[in-house]
Amino acid sequence: MAFKVEQALHMVGGGGETSYATNSRLQEKAIYRTKPILETGIAEMYRTLLPERMVVVDLGCSSGPNTFLVVSEVLGIVGDLRRRLEQKPPEIQFFLNDLPGNDFNNVFRSLERHEKKMEEEKGDLLVPHYVVGVPGSFYRRLFPCNTVHFFHSNYCLMWLSQVPQGLESEQGVPLNKGNIYIGENSPPQVVKAYQEQHRRDFSTFLKSRYVELSIGGGMVITFLGRNIKHPADGELSYLLGLLAEALNAMVSQGIISEDKVDTFNLPVYGASMQEVTAVIHDEGLFDVEQAQTFESNWDPLDDTDDDDIVFDNILNGKNVAKCVRAVFESLIARHFGDAILDELFARYAEKVAMHLLKEKTKHTVLVIALKKKA
Amino acid sequence: MAFKVEQALHMVGGGGETSYATNSRLQEKAIYRTKPILETGIAEMYRTLLPERMVVVDLGCSSGPNTFLVVSEVLGIVGDLRRRLEQKPPEIQFFLNDLPGNDFNNVFRSLERHEKKMEEEKGDLLVPHYVVGVPGSFYRRLFPCNTVHFFHSNYCLMWLSQVPQGLESEQGVPLNKGNIYIGENSPPQVVKAYQEQHRRDFSTFLKSRYVELSIGGGMVITFLGRNIKHPADGELSYLLGLLAEALNAMVSQGIISEDKVDTFNLPVYGASMQEVTAVIHDEGLFDVEQAQTFESNWDPLDDTDDDDIVFDNILNGKNVAKCVRAVFESLIARHFGDAILDELFARYAEKVAMHLLKEKTKHTVLVIALKKKA
Repeated sequence: MAFKVEQALHMVGGGGETSYATNSRLQEKAIYRTKPILETGIAEMYRTLLPERMVVVDLGCSSGPNTFLVVSEVLGIVGDLRRRLEQKPPEIQFFLNDLPGNDFNNVFRSLERHEKKMEEEKGDLLVPHYVVGVPGSFYRRLFPCNTVHFFHSNYCLMWLSQVPQGLESEQGVPLNKGNIYIGENSPPQVVKAYQEQHRRDFSTFLKSRYVELSIGGGMVITFLGRNIKHPADGELSYLLGLLAEALNAMVSQGIISEDKVDTFNLPVYGASMQEVTAVIHDEGLFDVEQAQTFESNWDPLDDTDDDDIVFDNILNGKNVAKCVRAVFESLIARHFGDAILDELFARYAEKVAMHLLKEKTKHTVLVIALKKKA
Repeated sequence: MAFKVEQALHMVGGGGETSYATNSRLQEKAIYRTKPILETGIAEMYRTLLPERMVVVDLGCSSGPNTFLVVSEVLGIVGDLRRRLEQKPPEIQFFLNDLPGNDFNNVFRSLERHEKKMEEEKGDLLVPHYVVGVPGSFYRRLFPCNTVHFFHSNYCLMWLSQVPQGLESEQGVPLNKGNIYIGENSPPQVVKAYQEQHRRDFSTFLKSRYVELSIGGGMVITFLGRNIKHPADGELSYLLGLLAEALNAMVSQGIISEDKVDTFNLPVYGASMQEVTAVIHDEGLFDVEQAQTFESNWDPLDDTDDDDIVFDNILNGKNVAKCVRAVFESLIARHFGDAILDELFARYAEKVAMHLLKEKTKHTVLVIALKKKA
């Protein structure tokens, strides 16, 4: 089971029905929701440095409409700022980063269409800019020292660099049987292994970005977390617990072997704000400018705020399943094979639908704005 | 016939038998051959600036072994230099540029393998570096002002940004009947249209690179040209004239319509050194540090120097056809459809074989080292 997430993970490519590009509304909503924080972060950096040339990086850009949404948001923010401050427009160089398995061909081939659209909308007010692609894991260095003004990352930092080590006994017996993430019955070693992997990864992330940022530079990171003390009670545990249930049901019908499920664990972690800020403080490299938590309905197409309203739980279940499939398909297919995907996610959709009738669980999303310490 | 080369052109992707990656030995030989000029150019820049961070751009990087060959050559050159000058190793940021249709996914997914190989070979002597991809035509701006230290381009600048305008009469009648490039019987308007397009494109290229280069920056460009005064007698005219002959033979057998061939013209130009240096002098932005011409056998696998030796003209013909197909397939398929490709290039291989029996024609390759004027 030892593999690098860097080599195996990618969102479903292309633009088809099960693609990430078609199923990324959850992530899109977060980009809109966190825009004020991004505005404040970029304004702070821009006012301090008034750079003629600005390097802005999107970590985990994926391939789809959201990739360009970030670019156009930043261009809008900087365009407004420089007019308000009566500055010449800077030149912005955008570095779009993702793992090498990401569909960069699709990103690069959609670029001209998006550029044309922005030119039509903004005309002369469009800030001059250049877009490039950066393949590689953000859990290592990606840029030379002091070359980046601003980092942005949306819905990525819940990924770990690898499945934690220590999820089996010294004799090689799986410890997290029947689960694919931290579940209610996961033993304490499993919880600890996930927590330590997260701590190590997030610390590496902070150190790498610190070196790459210019003085005065900053970042805004948004990712799935939890608002409950124990990881096993986190919202991600519920979401992935239902997926484990669907897999286990297929085990009891002999479609999948039990051993396959017992040895499958997802390289994600839903951290609490407390855990995240503890790492930031321990590293001592960044000032926390803002730290907020918001909730987002499991169903990306459900925009209601009321906790009690579940309009159509069957439809909600299908929507959640599509969204989860677009994100996790590559890892699941790698371990279980392609053949089970349709059935697994049909079962999962039903389980989510049933769950939502009982309780309208939501994602907890953490947003943190950081500034490089002088 | 009006289309942008930027949207239509790409070398054959992937790693299969007809792919560019498999059929790019001609280009590889040029990289080895021009290495001393690249060394001198980079040394000149490095000694002047001693940059802590260096930005090196490969324009037209394509997708295949040559892409990484350039990266490792530059790393070797800079590694040697900094040791000789007893400097700390700089951090190099490589920007690999090509048109958006290039198979960047393949480049990015091969990157880790190449990195590992270099680490094994060089160990601690490997200069720290970061690789990114830049989609877009080099006949426009690709980078912010003053951000690049060195440009490199191998076998790309014979491409024009578009098929020249003026290849048909005002009534829309094709002027370059039976040809797909400047041929012996091309009327003077056709020659003029190609020459003017080349002049315009090369001038745009120089202006764009000038703005993007740091003071002290330079470039080495290598591309197909001609050593004969009139374009119709150039080596590229022979190479593509034989391809036109193969198309015309298919016309006379009713496989392709005559009109299709008459309206097809390739967006390339084999310039003479005189034409190229004239544009450079007229623009006045660069000092010409070196300007050399060398010859390269049509057959990329033929490494003999003797003009008279043709070992196996049938094999030579096939090798030339593979190499030409990997480069021109996307444009030919776009105009004539996929269906004719296999037959066309089988016929072409025969025609090249026949030609090589009569005369061992060679490519003329121009190499020019330029330095940004202060």
